[in-house]
Amino acid sequence: MYSIEKTIASKQVYDGIVVKLYSDDVELDNGYKAVREVIHHPGGVCVAALDEQENIFFVQQYRYPFGEVLTEVPAGKLEYGEQPETCGRRELLEEIGATAQSFEELGCLYPTVAYDTEKIYMYLARQLTFSKQNLDEGEFLDVKKMPLKQAYELALSGGLPDAKTQLAVIKAYLKLHG
Amino acid sequence: MYSIEKTIASKQVYDGIVVKLYSDDVELDNGYKAVREVIHHPGGVCVAALDEQENIFFVQQYRYPFGEVLTEVPAGKLEYGEQPETCGRRELLEEIGATAQSFEELGCLYPTVAYDTEKIYMYLARQLTFSKQNLDEGEFLDVKKMPLKQAYELALSGGLPDAKTQLAVIKAYLKLHG
Repeated sequence: MYSIEKTIASKQVYDGIVVKLYSDDVELDNGYKAVREVIHHPGGVCVAALDEQENIFFVQQYRYPFGEVLTEVPAGKLEYGEQPETCGRRELLEEIGATAQSFEELGCLYPTVAYDTEKIYMYLARQLTFSKQNLDEGEFLDVKKMPLKQAYELALSGGLPDAKTQLAVIKAYLKLHG
Repeated sequence: MYSIEKTIASKQVYDGIVVKLYSDDVELDNGYKAVREVIHHPGGVCVAALDEQENIFFVQQYRYPFGEVLTEVPAGKLEYGEQPETCGRRELLEEIGATAQSFEELGCLYPTVAYDTEKIYMYLARQLTFSKQNLDEGEFLDVKKMPLKQAYELALSGGLPDAKTQLAVIKAYLKLHG
């Protein structure tokens, strides 16, 4: 039987640039006590953006934790109090230089349920118009596009390991062709 | 253009029960310097386990970071030097009380690419025989089963927010019916 966990004490043990880490003492229904380490994250947004020929846009960037260049859908962190759609539209413009007339929800994912509060909201963006990419300082990435069908096959065969990218690609494809 | 990031210095800033956090100084191709906070994680495994009637088994447990009871495929962390399949079979036995004759790879996901080294290996387990659930101390969960088709529809409609669960369910379903 699962048990609710009641917070007895909470303290911040690390206050980094990205990572805000807390260590909480909790008590379960049966009196069992445990420590829960939790990263507090503002949440994020990712966008499957399609052009008129149904190509999907990706960004490729070096991901330091893996020492690999990963292919990902455009994404970013929510700013304080920001609506997910606003964030998604901002990241799409910054990373791809695109504005979308159609912006539909594709659901949400919790990437790391055991120790991180992050939620990522997914969107399908269509009817794009293009202006100029406008990256943050210290943000270095390449833009790449490919047919959505090819990306879907790549997601299923293991070529897109990033979780949000796999899910956004698969959900976008199944929404349009499922 | 993306840039490789070279480690200049690395120090552990928190050594918790689950979270091992490092703060690294890195240098980019153009000389730009940055700090990368990275959680070092041993990696994990999750299992879409199906019975002969194509029901899939879930565990339901309280996830403290969200204050929600989540429905997830059985999963666990790799022990030092452990093969993913061994870990998956162990977790399936511990959480569901099941042993699988057929154990197939469903690919891998990187849940949190910006600041965590975690990789999760997914498996499809079939031809199950059942013995007794054998949970770790302090592990409290309920086992639930439902038709895979229903789980697939739930994953697509937002009812299974955990990333590994969404992906394992969708990939299992598409492998058998795609």
